[in-house]
Amino acid sequence: MAVKVNAIVAQSGGPTAVINSSACGVIVEAMKSGKIDRVFGATNGILGVLKEDLFDISAEKAERIEALKRTPSAAIGSCRYKLKSLEESRADFERIVDVFKAHEIHYFFYAGGNDSMDTADKVNKLAADSGYELVCIGVPKTIDNDLACTDHCPGYGSVAKYVATCAMEAGRDTEALYTHDTCTILEVMGRNAGWIAAATGLAAREPKDAPHLVYMPEAAFSFDKLVADVKQVHKELGGVFIVVGEGLKDEKGNYVTADSGAFSKDSFGHVQLGGVADMLKVVIEKEVGIKARWNKLGTNQRNAMHFASLTDVNEAYMCGQAAVRAAMAGVNGKMVTLVREDGPKYKCTTGLAELSDVANGEKKVPKEYINEAGNGITEACREYIRPLIRGEAPVTIGEDGLPVYMRFERKTLEKKLTEYI
Amino acid sequence: MAVKVNAIVAQSGGPTAVINSSACGVIVEAMKSGKIDRVFGATNGILGVLKEDLFDISAEKAERIEALKRTPSAAIGSCRYKLKSLEESRADFERIVDVFKAHEIHYFFYAGGNDSMDTADKVNKLAADSGYELVCIGVPKTIDNDLACTDHCPGYGSVAKYVATCAMEAGRDTEALYTHDTCTILEVMGRNAGWIAAATGLAAREPKDAPHLVYMPEAAFSFDKLVADVKQVHKELGGVFIVVGEGLKDEKGNYVTADSGAFSKDSFGHVQLGGVADMLKVVIEKEVGIKARWNKLGTNQRNAMHFASLTDVNEAYMCGQAAVRAAMAGVNGKMVTLVREDGPKYKCTTGLAELSDVANGEKKVPKEYINEAGNGITEACREYIRPLIRGEAPVTIGEDGLPVYMRFERKTLEKKLTEYI
Repeated sequence: MAVKVNAIVAQSGGPTAVINSSACGVIVEAMKSGKIDRVFGATNGILGVLKEDLFDISAEKAERIEALKRTPSAAIGSCRYKLKSLEESRADFERIVDVFKAHEIHYFFYAGGNDSMDTADKVNKLAADSGYELVCIGVPKTIDNDLACTDHCPGYGSVAKYVATCAMEAGRDTEALYTHDTCTILEVMGRNAGWIAAATGLAAREPKDAPHLVYMPEAAFSFDKLVADVKQVHKELGGVFIVVGEGLKDEKGNYVTADSGAFSKDSFGHVQLGGVADMLKVVIEKEVGIKARWNKLGTNQRNAMHFASLTDVNEAYMCGQAAVRAAMAGVNGKMVTLVREDGPKYKCTTGLAELSDVANGEKKVPKEYINEAGNGITEACREYIRPLIRGEAPVTIGEDGLPVYMRFERKTLEKKLTEYI
Repeated sequence: MAVKVNAIVAQSGGPTAVINSSACGVIVEAMKSGKIDRVFGATNGILGVLKEDLFDISAEKAERIEALKRTPSAAIGSCRYKLKSLEESRADFERIVDVFKAHEIHYFFYAGGNDSMDTADKVNKLAADSGYELVCIGVPKTIDNDLACTDHCPGYGSVAKYVATCAMEAGRDTEALYTHDTCTILEVMGRNAGWIAAATGLAAREPKDAPHLVYMPEAAFSFDKLVADVKQVHKELGGVFIVVGEGLKDEKGNYVTADSGAFSKDSFGHVQLGGVADMLKVVIEKEVGIKARWNKLGTNQRNAMHFASLTDVNEAYMCGQAAVRAAMAGVNGKMVTLVREDGPKYKCTTGLAELSDVANGEKKVPKEYINEAGNGITEACREYIRPLIRGEAPVTIGEDGLPVYMRFERKTLEKKLTEYI
């Protein structure tokens, strides 16, 4: 490899509160490596590479780079462009390597989930096949916490802290107003894995505390069971606070829809619903006879930098840093992992896993983290999540009382290739 | 009046982040007034009075009283029990005075909105008619900011700060992922007044910033206009972030429903929707042809103590304190108001208004605060809201990384009357 070459950093998939911290770790470490000339950003992830829409991050002011640690979402830009197999998307993969060649990019740092690790793996293999020197290192990122090979994922600690706080706060609302708004449902993200819903369980320090019921995709859901659970809590506490992951599944593993179980007993089958929380509301009001309402945090939960986990921010940065250090040490084709050290006190270091192992894996909430009734978490689950949400990440607040988040200046690179998409 | 008598404090309607701060102000000031023996809390507002379900707040530990300032929702308990006219609800009003008599309560501090001020006013009049010495003072409370006679309402500053931050953060998500999730809609509370939606406008410090479109109940809404607005922003910025108050109205002042305008052009009329945001999503996807998603903060917005306005917390406390001071000075039948002093620097003091004036009034977002296009706020509006969201209220964070909120011990008073409801 030439003495000094360029590196590229890209962000993929759903934003998080800390994916920018990882980018910061990559950029700062790359700039001081002595082996990297310039660090480029790919505007909107792999789409930016395909479009040759790149900008010079190393030309950005140092304050801007530093402010990444206090800025949510994906400041470089993200996308959901999905590359398929090498055979089906060969032109795309070749284009990526062409763009890298054109800009003398020999290091590719890609922050994302398992699809992104799959992409990085394939780009890496194609480059190797074509004799182009390329080092591809993945940086883990997902609020869903479902990546294989890593103890947990940067992004999860912050969403966990925020949704648990939201459950606590909206739970106090239900507690105060239970004579009128008797049941509240909080819908959180997690289509296949219940990690985010599980985290809200930490808000319940004592029996009276919300949430009283937590439903995750990993525990078979039925409307009959829901109705029995709600009746029970209502009898005991007067008010009921429920957290539901957006992707509930029935005993056969099918997504719960308006046609499932008790719900289809009447004309509801024709109704297009706002989501799973709305479904639960309708069933609870009809079958339990209490008023129910719901909140859906949506994309707010994954960008809640204003109350993010300091542990998460620091670990995200550490992952970015570790990616560059691994690359400098000659590692290739790996994703940085978070490793929880043994011992009574939480300590987290980084490790490495094959990109392909991450690409093909998925980590769901294990059985031992879900209570027997399938409507809450166990102490083992609390112990796993608790250290990840500790500490409050610093936020810069402007004179106007609102957070100050950064944007890049974006010195766009001149295009050297013909248009592709 | 006897040398030392008892006081009661009650909370009504939807909780806020700071209604407990007002209660704290009442309790602390009452205890040091020298004229009040014990301060009682009415469990669940006026319902607690009717049920004679009272507890001795003055017997609570000082740390608990102090922690009210850092605890959202209504710690004493709230309700939505609505008393009608003196004629229709005479038995209820008489019962209230009977309960006051039974427990030697001669001061009634009631935190709530205009319905609560109406209740306090009527209780006051009935007591006077029946020769029972009672002092009724109202403490303003509503996130909706729609109370008459006061510059603004405790509770509003905190919801404003939080929803503006949420718009900013979810806006960054849309900005990063606009190639896939092109439009995001944030639904906020405010059925009749657009103050909460208006506050999100403060997040837009520059044109690129979310929100790009803000729809309030005070500006006539039409789906045709929405479609044109969204197309325009989409063309200019690539991504579109919309904030919508839950109670949009058309030109005739009717609530916008699934049967309104463009929406009824096809079969959507049969669809039961999750709310106004869901309606907008369907129209935007169909008529503009871009993917849209939505977040609904629900009760989380009014209890977001974890990022509440310090100005709001302090003013809420000041209102509670002022209520007791007014009562001690011989005032009766008034609500404490917030008065914005003239001058370049924001300064807020308290005043007093007739309970009946507050009961019969309503303050909507004025025309000069809404832009000409009816899809955003003006600089005058920003100037009005800005001082209210300044400062971050302190939060106690536990070792587990989550906020610590208080609960009363609740030494319940022995009942002296027969059961009523």
